[in-house]
Amino acid sequence: MKDPFRTIQWKDNYIRLLDQTLLPAQEVYLEIRTLEDLCDAIRRLAVRGAPAIGIAAAMGVALGVQDFPGDDRKAFGKRFDAVCAAIAATRPTAVNLFWALKRMKRVLAGSASLGVEEVKSRLIEEAILMEREDRLLCHRIGEAGRDLIEEGDTVLTHCNAGGLATAGFGTALGVIRAAFEQGKKIKVYADETRPLNQGARLTSWELMKLGVPVTIIPDNTAGALMQRGEIQRVIVGADRIASNGDTANKIGTHTVAVLARHHGVPFYVAAPLSTVDMELCDGSEIPIEERDPSEVTHIAGVPIAPEGAAARNIAFDVTPYHLINGIITECGVATAPYREAFRKCFLMKEKEKI
Amino acid sequence: MKDPFRTIQWKDNYIRLLDQTLLPAQEVYLEIRTLEDLCDAIRRLAVRGAPAIGIAAAMGVALGVQDFPGDDRKAFGKRFDAVCAAIAATRPTAVNLFWALKRMKRVLAGSASLGVEEVKSRLIEEAILMEREDRLLCHRIGEAGRDLIEEGDTVLTHCNAGGLATAGFGTALGVIRAAFEQGKKIKVYADETRPLNQGARLTSWELMKLGVPVTIIPDNTAGALMQRGEIQRVIVGADRIASNGDTANKIGTHTVAVLARHHGVPFYVAAPLSTVDMELCDGSEIPIEERDPSEVTHIAGVPIAPEGAAARNIAFDVTPYHLINGIITECGVATAPYREAFRKCFLMKEKEKI
Repeated sequence: MKDPFRTIQWKDNYIRLLDQTLLPAQEVYLEIRTLEDLCDAIRRLAVRGAPAIGIAAAMGVALGVQDFPGDDRKAFGKRFDAVCAAIAATRPTAVNLFWALKRMKRVLAGSASLGVEEVKSRLIEEAILMEREDRLLCHRIGEAGRDLIEEGDTVLTHCNAGGLATAGFGTALGVIRAAFEQGKKIKVYADETRPLNQGARLTSWELMKLGVPVTIIPDNTAGALMQRGEIQRVIVGADRIASNGDTANKIGTHTVAVLARHHGVPFYVAAPLSTVDMELCDGSEIPIEERDPSEVTHIAGVPIAPEGAAARNIAFDVTPYHLINGIITECGVATAPYREAFRKCFLMKEKEKI
Repeated sequence: MKDPFRTIQWKDNYIRLLDQTLLPAQEVYLEIRTLEDLCDAIRRLAVRGAPAIGIAAAMGVALGVQDFPGDDRKAFGKRFDAVCAAIAATRPTAVNLFWALKRMKRVLAGSASLGVEEVKSRLIEEAILMEREDRLLCHRIGEAGRDLIEEGDTVLTHCNAGGLATAGFGTALGVIRAAFEQGKKIKVYADETRPLNQGARLTSWELMKLGVPVTIIPDNTAGALMQRGEIQRVIVGADRIASNGDTANKIGTHTVAVLARHHGVPFYVAAPLSTVDMELCDGSEIPIEERDPSEVTHIAGVPIAPEGAAARNIAFDVTPYHLINGIITECGVATAPYREAFRKCFLMKEKEKI
């Protein structure tokens, strides 16, 4: 089945972006023409989801250097660094953003003999390639994970790790979609995912477009459904995975993992290898973003708490590796010990040269 | 400290009720003059919380029979039964409602020799007595539980088990308030409690009025805070407790209990003995209300999900007794085995004749 939308695309001289803050009420595509607008789009979650943020970062680098005048490579390098620094400052948790910046830096470093205009073109090409690759990776993640879902399963997912969080097809939702496209009769519970309701707004929207039966539940309801035996699998995405398998993902993921273990329900993470940060020994080293409390005290601009009430808005949490039954990447399903499994995946990937 | 509001009161010929659906934006007191309006107020949660629902039910019985004409005791009995049946049909889970109806039936049965007008007066007196008793019980629950909270503790609570859920002072919040009034420096995290945000709207409002430091969190955040060691105690209320200690309370309570056990945080329930249903062997016999899915897909009238999206709105869940460290009633802190502990409490209570 064709993807029912395009999350992010490079156009001749701008980035075309589906504004996810307006979904599901409105399907509006933004035309991002400046670095400032791109950074703003990442910060306010117009584009969100670790892989999509990575692509946005790469395209942001390409966009941010286009109006550099002249052919001074050294000055161009400084401009490049300033662009990367601006993008790096938008959101701290998803490692794909930093991975994408590194990859763009490698392009710059690998084109020392070229003129500025040619480097600009190479950066655009790399960003476009990363978008294409990401869709391919999602399909491979889907294939790698689909057999973990059985006929008749009801699958719980948290937040949105779908086509909207990637260039297309999705990671956790990609696995669900691949199982559905095999003809398996499955159902999905989507945690609404407070405070910004990515589950209620985005996951339901995507799955409804694909024809996959989906039911929205408040985040506090999954435990009761597991207790009743109404959930057979959990699959979520990831924003950063430490080398030991500890996984940062949307706040509430840790809770779902604890509940799944308590009730004997298998819990899987699906993410591209670019989400794995081999430089981190464990999850305690992952920086966790805290966002404005007003996102908790207001919903769609409407206050739901007393004026002046204090609130906390921790955007992510860390699920320890021992609560994870498997991490599905484009190289297959990794299981503990994860450090060893990831090393093999990266080696495999290097040989394949994708 | 004086209670900063009155949840429910009998006035000469009507019930005065703080409309909790309008809090915290507006503090509006309803004048309930008909049985229909009383049932509607219970159904739409203008009055909510198991003990408060019990008092509303008792006052509803008193109100519902007042306009009975004549002095035919048999016909009066039929009218009385019809009134009770209407109230019993409003909400299925909180046992206090049925307990209150039973108590009113005892008044009727115990006044066989009296005329209709006198019985009407007795029913009003009983309902007023139950309101007074409930406030007294809450103070005793507070005293019984306050030593479970230590200086410097941060306490998590779910939903609202405060003065608003009772005639005043509260059960879970009564324990917190009693500890605070001992001079202990404590802080409270209030789960916002989707879908109707009783934590964000009501618990924060009450605690702010009392000067207790309170911070609202999404329901999916408590686990991450426990993981970081930022929560030392959990105290929640109850809607019905089976004789083995299995406890029905607001959806999400079970999740909090699983998280607390996983992270080694003590988990307490606070409720009057009228919430204990000795007729039930365990929690599987507790009827669980499911409410309209639109409460999940809309917040304050604003849609947060795609049009036509499916949602589930399970109002309560059951926390198994083995996840509960103690149940605080007006007779002290009961611990497992609960059936035996409750029997002793009821005996103690009978002797005291309160």
